[in-house]
Amino acid sequence: MSLFPLNQWYVAGFSSELTDKPIARTFLNQKMVLFRTGDGRVAALEDRCCHRSLPLSCGTVEAGGVRCGYHGMLYAPSGQCIEVPGQDRVPTKACVKAYHIVEKNHILWIWMPQELGVAPAREAPDYPWHDDARFKFGTGKYHYQAPWQLIHDNLLDLSHLGYVHLKTIGGNARLHMTADMKVTQDGDKVRVVRLMPGSTPPPTYKAAWPFGDTCDRWQEIEFELSHLKIWTGAVESGTDAIDDPNRGGFHMRGFHGITPETEETCHYFWSMASTRHPDMPENIDEVIRQTAFTFDEDRAVIEAQYRNMKDFGGKPEWVDIHVDVGGNRARRIVQRLVAAA
Amino acid sequence: MSLFPLNQWYVAGFSSELTDKPIARTFLNQKMVLFRTGDGRVAALEDRCCHRSLPLSCGTVEAGGVRCGYHGMLYAPSGQCIEVPGQDRVPTKACVKAYHIVEKNHILWIWMPQELGVAPAREAPDYPWHDDARFKFGTGKYHYQAPWQLIHDNLLDLSHLGYVHLKTIGGNARLHMTADMKVTQDGDKVRVVRLMPGSTPPPTYKAAWPFGDTCDRWQEIEFELSHLKIWTGAVESGTDAIDDPNRGGFHMRGFHGITPETEETCHYFWSMASTRHPDMPENIDEVIRQTAFTFDEDRAVIEAQYRNMKDFGGKPEWVDIHVDVGGNRARRIVQRLVAAA
Amino acid sequence: MSLFPLNQWYVAGFSSELTDKPIARTFLNQKMVLFRTGDGRVAALEDRCCHRSLPLSCGTVEAGGVRCGYHGMLYAPSGQCIEVPGQDRVPTKACVKAYHIVEKNHILWIWMPQELGVAPAREAPDYPWHDDARFKFGTGKYHYQAPWQLIHDNLLDLSHLGYVHLKTIGGNARLHMTADMKVTQDGDKVRVVRLMPGSTPPPTYKAAWPFGDTCDRWQEIEFELSHLKIWTGAVESGTDAIDDPNRGGFHMRGFHGITPETEETCHYFWSMASTRHPDMPENIDEVIRQTAFTFDEDRAVIEAQYRNMKDFGGKPEWVDIHVDVGGNRARRIVQRLVAAA
Repeated sequence: MSLFPLNQWYVAGFSSELTDKPIARTFLNQKMVLFRTGDGRVAALEDRCCHRSLPLSCGTVEAGGVRCGYHGMLYAPSGQCIEVPGQDRVPTKACVKAYHIVEKNHILWIWMPQELGVAPAREAPDYPWHDDARFKFGTGKYHYQAPWQLIHDNLLDLSHLGYVHLKTIGGNARLHMTADMKVTQDGDKVRVVRLMPGSTPPPTYKAAWPFGDTCDRWQEIEFELSHLKIWTGAVESGTDAIDDPNRGGFHMRGFHGITPETEETCHYFWSMASTRHPDMPENIDEVIRQTAFTFDEDRAVIEAQYRNMKDFGGKPEWVDIHVDVGGNRARRIVQRLVAAA
Repeated sequence: MSLFPLNQWYVAGFSSELTDKPIARTFLNQKMVLFRTGDGRVAALEDRCCHRSLPLSCGTVEAGGVRCGYHGMLYAPSGQCIEVPGQDRVPTKACVKAYHIVEKNHILWIWMPQELGVAPAREAPDYPWHDDARFKFGTGKYHYQAPWQLIHDNLLDLSHLGYVHLKTIGGNARLHMTADMKVTQDGDKVRVVRLMPGSTPPPTYKAAWPFGDTCDRWQEIEFELSHLKIWTGAVESGTDAIDDPNRGGFHMRGFHGITPETEETCHYFWSMASTRHPDMPENIDEVIRQTAFTFDEDRAVIEAQYRNMKDFGGKPEWVDIHVDVGGNRARRIVQRLVAAA
Repeated sequence: MSLFPLNQWYVAGFSSELTDKPIARTFLNQKMVLFRTGDGRVAALEDRCCHRSLPLSCGTVEAGGVRCGYHGMLYAPSGQCIEVPGQDRVPTKACVKAYHIVEKNHILWIWMPQELGVAPAREAPDYPWHDDARFKFGTGKYHYQAPWQLIHDNLLDLSHLGYVHLKTIGGNARLHMTADMKVTQDGDKVRVVRLMPGSTPPPTYKAAWPFGDTCDRWQEIEFELSHLKIWTGAVESGTDAIDDPNRGGFHMRGFHGITPETEETCHYFWSMASTRHPDMPENIDEVIRQTAFTFDEDRAVIEAQYRNMKDFGGKPEWVDIHVDVGGNRARRIVQRLVAAA
């Protein structure tokens, strides 16, 4: 049995990461080299030359594939070695594993199969907001010394904003903790909505939008296995209805792709897109800067949490409180999908 | 069976360390957070929030206790959670372990019990010299990558001064090695006295007291489980008797609190108090500076010793020489107290 | 059974390394201290004082031996403790293991015996070129996070020059890969000769010798257990015959002493000697600089290779190509000598 859900798409990174250098990255304990060939194909191969085990990610990208940096063997995106320099015949067994990888909405999606070589059972997820002219977006990525589900917990419970993120998006702790929260589930998706009318605009909001003294804030979080979408924002108090899908105001659309690397580590690929006020058209740089700062704070907390979990060996059992409903539902979904793998 | 003596007081640090930030520290394999509440109580709790395992030492100190830095749960010095923000009822099982800790003579003493919750069987040790107007003192601390008993060995045998501490308190090697040494034992205390009349004053002594060419030195070392007291000093040769308890001259009173962290690591909390000559009233800063330098040298030796012990797997057995009498007695005391734990 | 060939000479370093400080070095899992006594004897002892286990390499070198830096015990090159300061009698069991080490042609050779104390079965290898006036030489050393045999593979197959060493000695990749190669074996020695007439002189060659547009290059590699000799060089095309032992031109004589430290690490002691053209008499510094740069590149590749070998657990089996003949023969020789140990 796998330790992770299989036959699933996971986020492998962003399109902008694929330059003329190959990238070494491990997903679900499988070491891969990602690259875009000189003729434009995106590929993910086992990161190990079959000759003497050098990582192919130490090699170079060419039109036809990736060339090993030790003795020059050339591998096509199919994983087949197509050239052994100095030797006429390529041994038939000279090949490496190949994975399905696609590029969509500026995101790299990798299919982690139960059986290698079987085509993906469905299309990779859509994320149209990266291609939506109303938004500007920036991206970031983290390597976490913690299991992926601790990030799910963190993102599905934004009550921690009042204690962890005072300097950016936090604001008043008590308000965050007592905000009305609604958790719903639809199949393998969990949705958490929190509304906070009459909030003091936190620093990041004020840096990006000309808010007055109070605003009406919303937080809409949607979990699915490969990523979370977090729609947050606010309108000036007393203008649009906070739960109107067509409300105006300041919108931040966060994409959070979290992919296990090992049982103890994970990748976190995020993007943040925001709307712009006519008076503050260049707010995205500041939004991205403060978002990255906020996520640094989260990482410090989550990695300290995980070190401590290991030190204490998981005893005694966790005591749940009111904010854990969303995270616990996500855990049950992951557990079910692991069992199915 | 415990690996360490239990139902014992150990040194947990110095009072001056408790500021407005909590301190993370591990004693005898037990991770704790130490803090002084805003209303002045000293506390030592298990360093793990019962909700999601973040170390409480990542949190903040308030009047009533320590507040977790993730979701704001507040813990009293008793270990009981007394507030869950956003939730009316505090779950009864929301609590963490609490330890007995006291503050005495500027030292923090922690009781490491066989059974948690049982009151200490006796008072914490006295160390009145920190409150004695004739002395000024300074403190320091080390985290050692070596088991605590290697420091006992080191301190109970000051013959190493001639090889390890040439630059500060060492002086002539042969003199140290051939000094008259007397080892006595009283219950669980070991006392080593070495007298070195006609010594050349070593650099630290000359920096702190107007010695001439020769002095009469003494070293009086007293081991008990939680700490060693080392009284050293010298009189100008031919003045006071070297073994007169009321002798004058230059006195250094060293406190050496050594507390196991794990089987392989320990804490070393030290203070040094010295007398002042009317012509050199501000000698304490230089004494502390040189003492710290000396202890740095010891640490380098002891950590190298322990790495080597591990590399060689303890074979063959150690060959004892004349200087080992005191250290070996201390080892037998520790062994007996461990067996009793 | 040992994991390494025993009753063999291995390279322990270079004579120039023995100054007034002892050296800590581990060979075949045995930690040693190497030193030259004040009266000129070279010695290799177990690196652990028999008293309290401090590495003797933390001590000091004297006329009679090495003195421990903790309590001053003095050890002769024989391993016997000959002085315990402050004690009249030296305990008879106060001694450490001693190894046979000799100094020859500026190289330190250590005999790694099946049975300690038995005299070496043969003389240490000769390397007269360090004492040959026609050459100047320089030395270097590496500590490798990789097993020694990966360096044998690397040096016995110089086809990697075209991919790994483009900036120095590489030149045209295709030429290296298709060069005529002849592998022969004589007992426990393997010889690989590659001839590359009509080559473009690579950067290092041009920096050291006034080559024109093309040269005729040779590479003669000889493996034996303790070291490889690599004779490379070139003559201006159309002058001397490339396989004439008395050919002129530019000669580089590389000595490569590779000694296991542990199963996963090794030492690599190298020297490079080169001939000098009358117009470029001071070429050796540049040759050494570029050689070191080249070996840095090799190390990066080999250590990445080994990390990857461990990550993939050796599966699937390596696919061999045409260049592997020499390395595979060396592996069989090592395997046979290990079985004999």
